[in-house]
Amino acid sequence: MSKLVVVGTVAFDKIETPFGKTDKILGGAGTYIGLAAKKFGVDTAIVSVIGGDFPEEYINIFKERDINIDGLKMVEDGKTFFWSGKYHNDMNSRDTLDTQLNVLADFEPIVPAAYKDSKIVMLGNLHPLVQLSVIEQMDDPELVVLDTMNFWMDNALEDLKKVIAKVDVITINDEEARQLSGEYSLVKAAREIEKMGPKYVVIKKGEHGALLFHNNEMFFAPALPLEEVFDPTGAGDTFAGGFVGYIAKTEDTSFKNMKNAIIYGSNLASFCVEKFGTERMLNLTDQEIDERLKTFKELTQFKISLD
Amino acid sequence: MSKLVVVGTVAFDKIETPFGKTDKILGGAGTYIGLAAKKFGVDTAIVSVIGGDFPEEYINIFKERDINIDGLKMVEDGKTFFWSGKYHNDMNSRDTLDTQLNVLADFEPIVPAAYKDSKIVMLGNLHPLVQLSVIEQMDDPELVVLDTMNFWMDNALEDLKKVIAKVDVITINDEEARQLSGEYSLVKAAREIEKMGPKYVVIKKGEHGALLFHNNEMFFAPALPLEEVFDPTGAGDTFAGGFVGYIAKTEDTSFKNMKNAIIYGSNLASFCVEKFGTERMLNLTDQEIDERLKTFKELTQFKISLD
Repeated sequence: MSKLVVVGTVAFDKIETPFGKTDKILGGAGTYIGLAAKKFGVDTAIVSVIGGDFPEEYINIFKERDINIDGLKMVEDGKTFFWSGKYHNDMNSRDTLDTQLNVLADFEPIVPAAYKDSKIVMLGNLHPLVQLSVIEQMDDPELVVLDTMNFWMDNALEDLKKVIAKVDVITINDEEARQLSGEYSLVKAAREIEKMGPKYVVIKKGEHGALLFHNNEMFFAPALPLEEVFDPTGAGDTFAGGFVGYIAKTEDTSFKNMKNAIIYGSNLASFCVEKFGTERMLNLTDQEIDERLKTFKELTQFKISLD
Repeated sequence: MSKLVVVGTVAFDKIETPFGKTDKILGGAGTYIGLAAKKFGVDTAIVSVIGGDFPEEYINIFKERDINIDGLKMVEDGKTFFWSGKYHNDMNSRDTLDTQLNVLADFEPIVPAAYKDSKIVMLGNLHPLVQLSVIEQMDDPELVVLDTMNFWMDNALEDLKKVIAKVDVITINDEEARQLSGEYSLVKAAREIEKMGPKYVVIKKGEHGALLFHNNEMFFAPALPLEEVFDPTGAGDTFAGGFVGYIAKTEDTSFKNMKNAIIYGSNLASFCVEKFGTERMLNLTDQEIDERLKTFKELTQFKISLD
């Protein structure tokens, strides 16, 4: 079992979907990634920043699950990062209603000394220079995974390219892959992005699943078709957390094992969307994950023998 | 090996894509379905209608492949059905530039006597009453598969519901499934459509693959991610032709075997889009199909053993 360092926001989210709305609840990429990775029993540290308004109750969520928060800095006189969004009826698009960076504006990540030798690093969506700083603090990681967004392509492309050049895996959605590469075909887009540095490219297509590319190899995992998507918030981060968590647990960074990691990422993400925020992830049992793996097998596995 | 009856248009298409444009070329749902099904060596009859303008050269395409055309009626003084369309840059949407029904307007399908005992029937997209007439001419088919479009939902919904009530499998795209069922979730949509008659519902999502539903079972086949989609015309019909062709060849209408049929449908459709019109299907070899099956396995199959 490898140790895992996760950098990403720990935040307040206020969410509105056709099914209802929440008050300020626990959210953030670092939160979702950490909770998902911890499902594999991996020794996980979250590096992030919160304000004095962050409740003890949320801190205990990490503590109770034995997620290391030595790198979770509290700025007593600051306020926690806040995001508010409203999903459209199709759940595939959303409007950001409010973003308050607060303590995130001056965030300088510090990787705890005991985790500098972690073999797996997950860089959640943040300013590319913050992501870069985490890489530079690590001793000799085996696998660095980067998640990012179109916002940084629009506003910090040169910094983003610097960090992309230093990672092994990038996870990105289909539109972002097209924007970054200038190619419409996702096969061509992945090839262009591989030229920028990452040996592995994961393209997330939301309800249409996820693709993994490496040289001339390709793997695809569908999203589980659900009766109801209740709240998509955090699904992409939960996918990434499942992906790195499984790799850290198995200590196997081969393409073949990454296929399994992609399946586990999809598996966990399919739970995440069943309830608001982190609610479903907090109650999720190992048995439920195993049961859903069977569902994924039934959904995708077939037996054809050629004559 | 079961005999297969296919009803569907045999047509002229004029196609424009970002890669170029064609003159009037061979097209039509019946053509694509028949060519795909014949790849499995199935004894296949196409029931359709053409005008006196339909060239010998195209008729020979069917004859050379031993596709029965006793039910392909030629109206000497009529003109063949014509469709012209232009694809947008993303290849996912298209504008119809021209539709000339011509001889299709008065089409009354006649199933050849030697094929009335066929066990498998594929009803390509046509007026629901034409599709119904074919069902009524059959002795005792084991599996009737229906393809349809939103056009008939808008213009002949009651007739469409009559034929839907009589079929075993319906193939339909995602937007059409939502329109027909009034449900946004495809899981719920499939359940509603099953209540209308079909025991199996296939939802085609274009570049995002296809889903097969039956009671509480689900199966998903991705579309093969391609460097270039050259011309999507006929992909859905080729998918359907591969699906019924494989079932007719294997004489197995179980859900388990339908999974394989869905994979073969996706396999053939991935070739169809590589060239304009039927060009790629006409040159496709068995070896290429087998090779691509391996690609589909690599794309989707994984091995996870639980501790």
